[in-house]
Amino acid sequence: MNTYQILIEYEGTHFVGWQLQKNGLSVQEVVQKSLKKITKKNITIFGSGRTDAGVHAIEQSAHFKTNYKIKNKVNFINSLNFFLSKHKVSVLDIKKKSEKFHARHSAKKRTYKYLILNRTSPSVLEKNRAWNVRKKLDLKILKKGAKLLKGTKDFSTFRSSSCNAKSPVKTIIDVRIKRFDNKIEIKFIARSFLQQQVRSMVGCLKYLAEGRWDLKRFNKVISLRKRSLCAPPAPSCGLYLLKINY
Amino acid sequence: MNTYQILIEYEGTHFVGWQLQKNGLSVQEVVQKSLKKITKKNITIFGSGRTDAGVHAIEQSAHFKTNYKIKNKVNFINSLNFFLSKHKVSVLDIKKKSEKFHARHSAKKRTYKYLILNRTSPSVLEKNRAWNVRKKLDLKILKKGAKLLKGTKDFSTFRSSSCNAKSPVKTIIDVRIKRFDNKIEIKFIARSFLQQQVRSMVGCLKYLAEGRWDLKRFNKVISLRKRSLCAPPAPSCGLYLLKINY
Repeated sequence: MNTYQILIEYEGTHFVGWQLQKNGLSVQEVVQKSLKKITKKNITIFGSGRTDAGVHAIEQSAHFKTNYKIKNKVNFINSLNFFLSKHKVSVLDIKKKSEKFHARHSAKKRTYKYLILNRTSPSVLEKNRAWNVRKKLDLKILKKGAKLLKGTKDFSTFRSSSCNAKSPVKTIIDVRIKRFDNKIEIKFIARSFLQQQVRSMVGCLKYLAEGRWDLKRFNKVISLRKRSLCAPPAPSCGLYLLKINY
Repeated sequence: MNTYQILIEYEGTHFVGWQLQKNGLSVQEVVQKSLKKITKKNITIFGSGRTDAGVHAIEQSAHFKTNYKIKNKVNFINSLNFFLSKHKVSVLDIKKKSEKFHARHSAKKRTYKYLILNRTSPSVLEKNRAWNVRKKLDLKILKKGAKLLKGTKDFSTFRSSSCNAKSPVKTIIDVRIKRFDNKIEIKFIARSFLQQQVRSMVGCLKYLAEGRWDLKRFNKVISLRKRSLCAPPAPSCGLYLLKINY
């Protein structure tokens, strides 16, 4: 059997998410179907993690095992992208890996990017690609809030009720904030995240940066570890899975 | 009469261009129709310049004259954007100007951005928003070529046969190139440009940076001032009107 890693870009707007589901089209499904068209085999791909409906990936990583041998990588990727061309999915690369490689279990670091467009007018160029926040956000206070999210903590406040992780304790390695014009980009780096953690954190950061909460309240929301205290999670359209490091 | 400047963002993919035309929907037409819905008056808007079909604007500037008085700017913009919401057009701002203000004639500087996505896989997140160039581009040589385009010159090579500017002599104030990952962004700044000048220059820069031309050839293409020597113009999908300075 050969183990291959596959790197995938997608525009999540019209998908039910990464993971195969009965109620609609998933990224996993369209990639698996395209793999079947070339290899004539049923191949199951395993993603580094799920992404929700509407969430994009600049570089999702997955793996699959098959006795099919990819001889010409460039041709193989081109064929895959030909079959994928009617969907908003593009295969960026395929790499031969050792038998032990597992897209989810072997991941050392995951980076997500959240994009906020901070302006009053609706956006057409960033439609479905950013969260359009109308109220002026205070970048300085946003950065202070982001700092409080760093480190190893119980993130129960930021955890979806349907999350099935064993523990709510996670380590946020870094939060990096950049502003260019009226765009605010927030990068979150961790080994792994709880379900809806990034969107929940961004929702709370937005409450803080628009002045609805002060830092004391923000800190309390973290430390009380109660989901009910969380602000509404930020919409999925602003979230990008950026990179998986192994 | 009141003179207003209007700043507009649009996604050009499904428009015939900025300018009113009989053969399809233009940005000018949809903005004028929305203005009429609110003011009940026929208003003609004058853009800083035309953009071709498929070209985007991050901030197009136009003006119009009317005896209608805008009392509440925020409400007026929100109403306009409500009527525009089925099109990929968004009004960013409206400003009261002196009677002499003219979006085209008063412009001191125009900035265009051209976005190249330099990678082999087709892009889904940048679809219709960038030129997907598969062959690896040499950034160093691209920068050298860009330098040769700066200054006051006869740009006949880079001028569409349908261009009706009086003179082919223009001044490129600056060309700025930035690379981030596999994206190359080229900004062109000038008081004004010839028709298709930016796309023609980018087409030639691409020939240079992919090694099809050397610098000597590139220089010759400029100095011989013959349209027939120009490389195929870069596609409109990668071009953005970024800013008009007055």
